Amino acid sequence: MNKLDLMGELSVKTPSKIVMVVSDGLGGLPGPDGVTELEAANLPNLDQLASESVCGLVQHVDTAITPGSGPGHLALFGYDPLEFDIGRGVLEALGIDFDLRMGDLAARGNFCSVDDDGVITDRRAGRIPTEVNVELCKLLRDITLDGVEVFVEPVEGYRFCLVLRGSGLQDGLTETDPQREGMKPLPVQARRPEAERAATLVNQWIAKAADRLKGQKPANMVLLRGLATRPNIPSMSEVFNLNPAGVAIYPMYRGLATLAGMKVYHGGHDIHEEVALTKKLWDEHDFFFVHFKNADSAGEDGDFGRKAKALELLDSAIPAIRDLKPDVLMVTGDHATPSILKAHSWHPVPFMLYTPWRYPDEVRQFTERACRDGEFGRIPGTDVMPLAMAHAMKLAKYGA
Amino acid sequence: MNKLDLMGELSVKTPSKIVMVVSDGLGGLPGPDGVTELEAANLPNLDQLASESVCGLVQHVDTAITPGSGPGHLALFGYDPLEFDIGRGVLEALGIDFDLRMGDLAARGNFCSVDDDGVITDRRAGRIPTEVNVELCKLLRDITLDGVEVFVEPVEGYRFCLVLRGSGLQDGLTETDPQREGMKPLPVQARRPEAERAATLVNQWIAKAADRLKGQKPANMVLLRGLATRPNIPSMSEVFNLNPAGVAIYPMYRGLATLAGMKVYHGGHDIHEEVALTKKLWDEHDFFFVHFKNADSAGEDGDFGRKAKALELLDSAIPAIRDLKPDVLMVTGDHATPSILKAHSWHPVPFMLYTPWRYPDEVRQFTERACRDGEFGRIPGTDVMPLAMAHAMKLAKYGA
Repeated sequence: MNKLDLMGELSVKTPSKIVMVVSDGLGGLPGPDGVTELEAANLPNLDQLASESVCGLVQHVDTAITPGSGPGHLALFGYDPLEFDIGRGVLEALGIDFDLRMGDLAARGNFCSVDDDGVITDRRAGRIPTEVNVELCKLLRDITLDGVEVFVEPVEGYRFCLVLRGSGLQDGLTETDPQREGMKPLPVQARRPEAERAATLVNQWIAKAADRLKGQKPANMVLLRGLATRPNIPSMSEVFNLNPAGVAIYPMYRGLATLAGMKVYHGGHDIHEEVALTKKLWDEHDFFFVHFKNADSAGEDGDFGRKAKALELLDSAIPAIRDLKPDVLMVTGDHATPSILKAHSWHPVPFMLYTPWRYPDEVRQFTERACRDGEFGRIPGTDVMPLAMAHAMKLAKYGA
Repeated sequence: MNKLDLMGELSVKTPSKIVMVVSDGLGGLPGPDGVTELEAANLPNLDQLASESVCGLVQHVDTAITPGSGPGHLALFGYDPLEFDIGRGVLEALGIDFDLRMGDLAARGNFCSVDDDGVITDRRAGRIPTEVNVELCKLLRDITLDGVEVFVEPVEGYRFCLVLRGSGLQDGLTETDPQREGMKPLPVQARRPEAERAATLVNQWIAKAADRLKGQKPANMVLLRGLATRPNIPSMSEVFNLNPAGVAIYPMYRGLATLAGMKVYHGGHDIHEEVALTKKLWDEHDFFFVHFKNADSAGEDGDFGRKAKALELLDSAIPAIRDLKPDVLMVTGDHATPSILKAHSWHPVPFMLYTPWRYPDEVRQFTERACRDGEFGRIPGTDVMPLAMAHAMKLAKYGA
C-alpha cells in the first residue's frame, strides 16, 4: 500500500491542531566566518523551541537533488514530488487565484523585447511595471484558437500567465525561453505524440501574440515556460482528514497550498501579519501552513547578512505562534538557499517538531549541524506530515 | 528483485542457531521522572548484552505508523506488513490452534448483551467466564449456511472465533461492532463486489445466532470484527531455509508464528518456562521466536511501575538464554507501548543483535535513547531477519 493510501486509511479527525511554519530557503552553508546563516543569526526563540522539540534534517526529493519550490512544498504537504509533477505554469495560475481546472494547460509567460530580426534583447522587457503588463494582457486577451478557450492574466512586473482550456490538451511541451539574450525565442515542441495538438495551439497563439505586440515598446514579444496541465493531487482533507489553511504572502505559495486542497489566505505584508491572521483563523482549521519568504530572497541575492536578519525576523514571530498552543508545531524549509551559492541547494534542511511525545535530547540550537544529531535523524520530506499526524494523535494503529 | 525473493535465493542451511526474543510493547516514553520504563528498570543482563551487541532502533511498518501486533511481528519475521495484510479474525483463529486453511474466512467474535430493542448494553457481556463461552459456542455450532462449512470456537472470556469454509469467500467486509454501547450492532457490508456473497452469509449467520441466544443472560448477542481470509504468506522455511520454532504463551502470537510457517509451542506460564522449553527444543530447530507479553499488558494499562517490573522479569531470563549459546541472539519489540499513552505508539523500538561480527561501540544500555546511537541506526522491521541471517552466516554472497 502506498503512503498516501495508508494515511487515507489511518487518519482520524480530532480537535488537535498542527502548525507548519515553512521558511523558504531555510538552510544555508558556512560563509567566510565558517558559520551558516542560522548559526550566525541570534535566534533565542527558535533555539528554545529546538530544545523542547524533536529535531532532524529533511530531504525533500532525494539525496543530492535540489528541490524547486513546488517539489519542496509538495513533499512537506505529504506528496512524493517524484510522483506528482507540477509545472511552473500551473503554480503561476494558481498563485493569482485563477480557477485552474483539471485538464487546463497553463504556462508562465514573460513579456520580453526583441529586435527587428526577432532576436531577444531583454528577457524581461526592462522589467516593465505591472500596470503596463495589465494593458498588454488586454491586448492579447481576444486572441482566439480553434476548439479551446484562452485566458491571459497579468501576474507581476513583466510576468503573465497563459491558460488554454479544452479537452485533450496534454503536457510534455518544451519552453520557448532560450534563457539568454541574443537568441530568438524557440518554438514549442511536443516531447510526446499526445502533446502535438497542444504544441500546435500554443505556437499559433505565440504567432498571434507577436503580431499584436508589434510596435509596442519595450515589450514586443512573449516567452513561455513551464507549460503544464494541473496535476491530479488528492486533497489534504481526503488524505489526512484535515481542514487545512494556507497562509502566504506570495502568490506561488498560495498556489501550492491550493493544489494540496488547502483553503488559502493572503498573509498580508510580513510574518507578524501572517501569524495574526493564523490566530484569527484558529477556530476554523486544524492545520495551518504558514509561509515565510524573506530568508530565501536574501539567500538568492547572495546576501548572507540579510538572510541572517530575515531569520531573526522569523524568530521574533515564534512566541506569538507558541501562544496559540498548537498541539504540534513544526518549523522547517522547502529547500536550502545558501547565500554563498545564491541559489537553491541539495543540502538537507533543519526540521523541528514540538511534541510532548518525545525523548528529550541534546539539541539546543536550530541549525543545520545541531539538527543532524536530533532524534529524527535524516527523514524524507514525505515523512513530515505523517509525523505531524502521529504526534497530534490523528493516526490510528495499523492492523490489529 | 524483492527482498523475500533475494532471501530465498541467498539463504543457506547451516548448523548455526538464531534466537529472537520479542518483548511485546518494549519501547516507552519518559514518564513523570523524565525517564522511560527501560531507563527506570534495573536491567543488568540486558545492558550487558547491549554492550556486547550491535544496537539500533526498529521501525516496523513505516515512519510515524503505529503497528498493531500483527504487522509488528510480521515485519520482524521478514515480511513487509504493507504487503501482507492480516485481519484480526485470522490471528484469532490461528491463535487457538484452529487449522485455518487458504480461502477460509475468519472473524473475531464477542458475546455481548443487548436490550429488548437490540441496543448494546455491554459489549463484553459482563466479561463472562470461558466456561460459559464454551457452552454458548456449543449452542451456535449447528447453525448451517448454504454452501459453506461453519466453525464456532471459544477463545477466552467473552471472545470466540467464527470461521466460514467454502470456495469463493472473499474478504473486504465491514465490522458489526459499533465500538460503543447504546447502539445496535451494524450489519456486515461488502467493501468490494467480490465480497458480497461473504457479507450475505455472515449476516445470515448473525441472524441465526441472535435467534439461538435469545433469552440467554447476560450474553444474548454477538459482535464480529476483523473479518478476513488467511493471507498467502510464504513460510520462513521457504524464504530463509530455516526450521523455525515459535514459543509463546498467548494464542495470538502462536497464531502469528504459524502464519510465518513456524512450528509453534505453548510457552507455559512465564518467560522462564518459555526459555526452559526453548532449551528442550534446542536440537530440533535452528530459529527460535520467543514471545514475552508482560511489558505490553502493563503499558496498555498505563502502569509505568509494572511495565518496568515486567522488563526486569525479562532481564532475569536473559542468562538462561545466553547459556544456550545461540550464534545470533536478538532482543526487540513488536512496537512501543508507552505507559503514558496506554496504547501502542509509532516510536521506533530498541533492537540489539548479539554477534561476534561487529564494531564495538559506546552503547552500554538497552534503552530507547542509548540504542539510537547504535551501529545499526534506524532500520525497517524487514531488515531484522536479513541481519540475523547474515550474522548467523546463513546468507550467501549476492552475485559473483
